[in-house]
Parts: sequence; C-alpha cells; structure tokens
Amino acid sequence: MTRTLINELSTHIGETVTIKAIVDVRRDQGKMAFFDFRDRTGIVQGVVFGKPEVLEVAKEAGNESAVAVTGVVNKRPEKMVNDKVQNGDIELEITNITILNKAESLPLELDSEYGIEVRLDNRPLTLKSKRDRAVFKIQSEITRGYAEFLRSQGFTEFQAPKLVGGDAEGGAAVFKVPYFRETTAYLASSPQFYKQILVGSLERVFTFATAFRAEKSATTRHLSEYTSLDAEVGFIEDHHDLMKILTGLMRHLRTHLEATCAPEFTTLGIELPKVPTEGDTFPFMKLREAQALIKEKTGVDKTTEPDLEPEDERWLCEYANKELGSDYIFITHYPVSKRPFYTYEDEADLGFTKSFDLLFRGVEITTGGQRVHNYENLIERIKMKGLDPDKFHFYLQAFRYGIPPHGGWGMGLERLTQKFCELDNVKEATLFPRDINRIDVFTSSTQSDEADI
Amino acid sequence: MTRTLINELSTHIGETVTIKAIVDVRRDQGKMAFFDFRDRTGIVQGVVFGKPEVLEVAKEAGNESAVAVTGVVNKRPEKMVNDKVQNGDIELEITNITILNKAESLPLELDSEYGIEVRLDNRPLTLKSKRDRAVFKIQSEITRGYAEFLRSQGFTEFQAPKLVGGDAEGGAAVFKVPYFRETTAYLASSPQFYKQILVGSLERVFTFATAFRAEKSATTRHLSEYTSLDAEVGFIEDHHDLMKILTGLMRHLRTHLEATCAPEFTTLGIELPKVPTEGDTFPFMKLREAQALIKEKTGVDKTTEPDLEPEDERWLCEYANKELGSDYIFITHYPVSKRPFYTYEDEADLGFTKSFDLLFRGVEITTGGQRVHNYENLIERIKMKGLDPDKFHFYLQAFRYGIPPHGGWGMGLERLTQKFCELDNVKEATLFPRDINRIDVFTSSTQSDEADI
Repeated sequence: MTRTLINELSTHIGETVTIKAIVDVRRDQGKMAFFDFRDRTGIVQGVVFGKPEVLEVAKEAGNESAVAVTGVVNKRPEKMVNDKVQNGDIELEITNITILNKAESLPLELDSEYGIEVRLDNRPLTLKSKRDRAVFKIQSEITRGYAEFLRSQGFTEFQAPKLVGGDAEGGAAVFKVPYFRETTAYLASSPQFYKQILVGSLERVFTFATAFRAEKSATTRHLSEYTSLDAEVGFIEDHHDLMKILTGLMRHLRTHLEATCAPEFTTLGIELPKVPTEGDTFPFMKLREAQALIKEKTGVDKTTEPDLEPEDERWLCEYANKELGSDYIFITHYPVSKRPFYTYEDEADLGFTKSFDLLFRGVEITTGGQRVHNYENLIERIKMKGLDPDKFHFYLQAFRYGIPPHGGWGMGLERLTQKFCELDNVKEATLFPRDINRIDVFTSSTQSDEADI
Repeated sequence: MTRTLINELSTHIGETVTIKAIVDVRRDQGKMAFFDFRDRTGIVQGVVFGKPEVLEVAKEAGNESAVAVTGVVNKRPEKMVNDKVQNGDIELEITNITILNKAESLPLELDSEYGIEVRLDNRPLTLKSKRDRAVFKIQSEITRGYAEFLRSQGFTEFQAPKLVGGDAEGGAAVFKVPYFRETTAYLASSPQFYKQILVGSLERVFTFATAFRAEKSATTRHLSEYTSLDAEVGFIEDHHDLMKILTGLMRHLRTHLEATCAPEFTTLGIELPKVPTEGDTFPFMKLREAQALIKEKTGVDKTTEPDLEPEDERWLCEYANKELGSDYIFITHYPVSKRPFYTYEDEADLGFTKSFDLLFRGVEITTGGQRVHNYENLIERIKMKGLDPDKFHFYLQAFRYGIPPHGGWGMGLERLTQKFCELDNVKEATLFPRDINRIDVFTSSTQSDEADI
C-alpha cells in the first residue's frame, strides 16, 4: 500500500492508510497498546484495541523500532482532542503492524539528561532524540538561509580545497598529511586564500568550508574540525559594506528560522535573537571605544589591551542587549598586530585595521574585514609578519592581475548553531565532533589501519 | 557616488552613473579608447573621446584591471546596435576613470587554448577567463539545484566529518593523518556510514561531502580530493525508489540550469542533456541485460564480466541516447562481489545487488543502491568481506536500534560539472584540483613547513 506521510493524515479522515514510521513511544495497557509514531513530517498517536494478533506484533515493536502501520484515521472525541500537539485531533486505529527493523531495548532514555561523553559514545542512538533532531534541523536551515540570502545578493558558491600546501594563516596549529612522492600536505585551517583569489573571477563568493585546527585544547569551545561559512566580496568601499551585508544576512536567518523551525524552537525552549528594527547595520563600535565603555561602566581598565577577553565579549553583548536592543554587536579596529597579514590597515587610524568581530550572545561568531589588495603592500605585510613572499607565489598571482578592493568573513557553523540553540557546548551542535580525545570513539581505542567506526 | 551594477544600466539612459568593474578588453584608437567592462552582473561597452586627461588614465587601465568608471549612459545609434550581446544597445560615455587596482600585462591570453598544466600553474589568473567563469557559475547552480530539489523532497542537509577513524569502504587508498596522542586518523573516502546513521535520526539526508582518494593515478578522471553529493533515504521499498528520486533530481537540474545558466551554456557552446519526457524513472536495465544487449548488437561477449568497462559505458550511453531518447541510463544489479559489504542482495536474484550506477554521456556519474538494514545480516556481510565487526562498533549502533530500510547514492560534483560542460578533463571542472603531482603548484616544489600557496 502507498505510504502516507504523517503530516498528510488529517486529510484522510475515515480512510484506511499505511504509514511508515519510527515508534516514538509505546505504552501497553493490557488488551490495548498506545503508540506515538514519528516520521520526518511529524507525529501521530495510534491505538491497537481488540485485535489479539495485531497486539502480539505491537508488543514486539519497542521504542525506536521502524514499522509500517495500517489503520483507519479517526477523529478523536471532543474531550480527547489535544490542541497543543500535531495531529492532536486524530488517532490511528491500527489494523496491522509490520516490523521493518526491530530495535533492541534502549540502553538510555533518549530525552533524558546525560553528560556529553555519554551522548557522544552513543551518538548513533542519541541523535534520534527529539532535542538532537531539533538542533540539526535548525543547523540545516541555517545553511539553507545562509546560501539563500547570499545568492540573492549576487554571490556564487564555490568548493574550497581541504588539502593545502601550507598553513594559510601562518600561525594556527595544523594537521600534516603525508602526501604523494614523500611530500607533505596540510589540512586547511581556512579557505582564506582561495576565496580571495576567486574575488578576481566571480566578484562575490561564498563556501561551506571545512576548517581544521590541531590545537591541543579540550574545552567546550574547541573542535579539531568545523564548518566555516566563508564569504568574500569584491568592490567594497571598506569594512562597513561587509557589516551591512552581514546585518542583512543575520536578519534573514532570523526570519528564515522563524518561518521554518518554529516547532524546533519550542522543543528546545529557545528564543529568536533580538535584532534592532532600525538601521542597515547592527550596533558597532571600535575596540578602543568598547574598552573605554567597559572602563566607564565597570571601572575595569583594559583600554590598552590588544584584544577583548571572553568576559569583555560577554559584557558587551549584555550591554548591546539591554541598551541597544540587539543581540548582535560589531567591534571594529583590532590592532594590526593581532590580525593576519592580509588585513587592511586604516589609513585614518594607523596601527588599527578595517576589521571586525561580530559578537552574539556572549561570544564572537564572525571575524572579518577588508583585505590588502595592492600587490606591493601585500608583499610588505607578508614580510612584516616574518613570512617569505616566495612561498605565496600562487596566491600572489591574483594580486598582480587587478583584484578589486575586497573583504569578507568567516563564521563557524557549529558555534552559530550552539548560540542560536543556547547550548552549553559546541560539541552538542556538532553531529560527529572531533577533538583531542575523540573521533567518534575515544582515540585511545582506535589504533588500527583498518576501518574503525 | 553609488555603484550602479552593469545589468541595471539600461534603466539609466541619459544619466551619469558610476560602475565598478574589471577591464574585460581595452582597444586604443589614437584619441579614443574603447572598453568592455565586466562586473558580476554582465558586460558593457565604454568609450573615452575628447578628454585627454581621462584618456591618459584609460591608457594605464590594461586588461583585467579593477576600475571605477563614471560616465553617461547613451543609447547607441541604430546601426551600431548589437542585439546579440548584453547591453548591445547602449554605451557608456566615460567622463572619469579611477584605477582601483592595476593589472600587470598578462602573461597569457585568458580565452586562448592552453594545456591543462599551464592553466593550473596560472589558476588565479585563468579563473578570470570567460570559460572558467561559466564553468564555475554552472557548478554553483548545480549545488543550488541539488539542494533545492532534495529539500523539496523532505531531505535535511548535514555536515559530514572529513577526519575519520578508519577507511569506511574498507578498500580505497586513504590518506593518513597523524592525530593527537600519537594516534592516526584518516581522511574520509566517503560519508557513507554517517549518512546511514542519520537515516535513523532525520530519515532523509543529504550532504556536500569531501571525499579523499590516495590513488597513485594521474589521469583525466582522477582527483585526490573531490566533492561528493551524497544522499540517503529511509523507508524505501527498494532501489527503484532511489532511482525515481534521482530521475526527478536530474530533471530538476536540467530545468534549473536552463533557467539560470543560459548565457553560460552559450559561452561554452554546450547543450542541455536529453531526457525522456515520459516515465518517472530514466531507462534502466540489469547489468546482465546490458551485457546481453552489447553482445547482441556488437557481437562482443562480456556476459560473464562482473562489471562494465569504460567502453561498455560509452556504448550504453550512445544506445540510450539514440534508441531511448535519454542521455541518462541506470544499470542495476551489480554482483555482490563488486559492491561494498553494506549493499543489499536481491533475494529474487541471488548473487546480485539492489544497486545501480547512473550513466551519463559515456560515464558513471552516480553509484547507489539499497543498504543492508538488519543488524545480524550486516555483521554477516562484514565478516564475508573479511572485516572485523568489532571495528564497526560505532556505526553498528544505528542498526541495533531500529534503522529503517534505506538506501542512497553518491555523485561526484566535479565529474557531473565536467559532463554537463562537456570538458575533457575533470580538473577543468575543479577550481583547485589536487592530484598525485599537484597542490596548486607542483608538489615537487612545495617542501616547507610554512605557508606555501
């Protein structure tokens, strides 16, 4: 029999249909069995009553089993209607159950609280929890909304390479990969050089890059591998053009998530970000202004520090939320010394760059800025950082042949998902997180040349 | 002055505007200079006449320079109108040129024919060619159309990890990555296990994965790193459900490219694929039927071979094109011995699998099929391939807890782009191809621990 999706059931009242679904919950009551079934489109209640042969199968269909269920779609009696859930006004009167794949009894309760290590050890199972399904549905809609908005602004998507000849940023801890002919390749820590090159070709580009960091840190913020939502924009005047696009992007994401993920926001008990309704750019201030504000309001003097500390970012976000009506705030003009060689120095504020961080709910979610586009300046900057321009031969070609003034940003998808979903640990917003201790299983247990997953 | 995009110029006749663009071509004629300017939205002609001070700057603005140009948008006289090009009825009468970034004189002609190695050595420059911009615009629209269609069919996008604990397929040549604590990680040769796990959670998933292959081959078909358009579908009856979705997907891609990339198809002189208008699945036949057909029509007997050879794929594609009105043809039922352990054996055709290849314009562009979903069967299949089930502990969890009957496919983005664009070498459809000899520059010249690009 043709499969009917669960979100279509209400148009089949009185009819016999077949659904294919996962047993979300089964409750036995003597000669009856009650089920919640779920498929990708939603959830529905079913009941077996007065059919001993069906009841027998039903009792084998434990939670998380995959089943095909035939039954009559009935309207519930008035007093049994539950307005608050999907299909709360109907019920499937089950006439047949086929177990497609039976689940063993579960070693843990899917929607109970467990430590992150327990959740990750049992990831193929815990990903079936309502919470995780909500988080990764939201993540999927973030990537969709991100691409949708940028394409509407004339951006072209590209595929950034993951194997590179060296460390683009000239500083991060990188993974080495023994390559052909006894050479060494590296895992990209950023698609930076490639997106800059492409500005010369396609003018506006974006990519869902993978960035690898070999940092020996095991915190709630660290991942060995993450997804970087990168973009680069040609023919900008300065970093303000980028901040405008980013403001439009974050506004679009909010609208998009509101339209597509309302049930998931309810499941997670989270709220959409607060964004100011006025203005084409979220609130922004220079690093030095931010530090002066912190000093004025809290008495703590960090006005000569070259960067914000985590507590400063949290304070500024609270300030922006309370005083400026925004969960987002841009901090601009980080010192030349704290930014990579390709960052554009502000001629009107020497020593500081036309760069920015975008802070959101207590942390930096995006780093960006204008880049150096002049070939000679770029060579000079490379040298100033103690690097050898000859090693950037491939990249530098772009700058010899007329690359426009440009800039861009990178945004960690997992951190963004974490902050949208108000999760404590970035690993909760990562399907299969890799860190110093773990690739699916603990690394201490993975020593083999063969498959190990 | 506010920037006007080139595709908006025709709504500004008689007005003075500023464009920001790349010099596509400059032609000097004594006291005049003619330009074609391009930005991400198109191309327009400009002329400097009778303005010595502007002419002086114009002569510095060589091909590929980035410029800001102010001028009056004039209608061309009737006899100068060229219907065949964008903005062929207007011309910019230039009053000012500012060079934003000057290009050196080019070492090669962007749209001339060069060998692939020359093109790759100069990639940051050759990507500015009209041909390459067309190819990668099409590639961007392929990823858009792919995601768009699958989302419309209830698929959720996910991010597949690139660092894995072992070789998923248990056979391909893999890159090793020294990981933390003196352990070894590997670069994923496929997102296979992860997408199967996710069927249990999200039912229908897709990803733009990166697949790495450490094969020591330097051919027109090999890449060390490529983008794999992967998808996995829960609650299928068998592989025919997958072939139906794929047929819908390839039809959608055709429609989407027709709507979004007509100018690029013209630039490349290529044609949209031929697809049959009838039926919900492209033509399909079993491997043994295909071999019998080849024997019948050509006299060549390969009816006992376990797989198709490249010449067979070409022959079948020609046959499908001429006899079946389709550039696409599915070949199903490859032998158990030629497919990975997770492939579903057809109970009605023992020894053969419910798997398929999708052939397009002479080559396989997609491999897919139904998977084994029963835990015990899967363990048995792993053992039959001589692998150790204990090493698949993480993956196997999904099968203990009720994963639905499922299947899916993988599709190489670069090969698909190559075949759509009718290019000879897959590297021409890869922005920054990696192979046995090259990561941007030849690997023989990249020995350094520092940045090298």
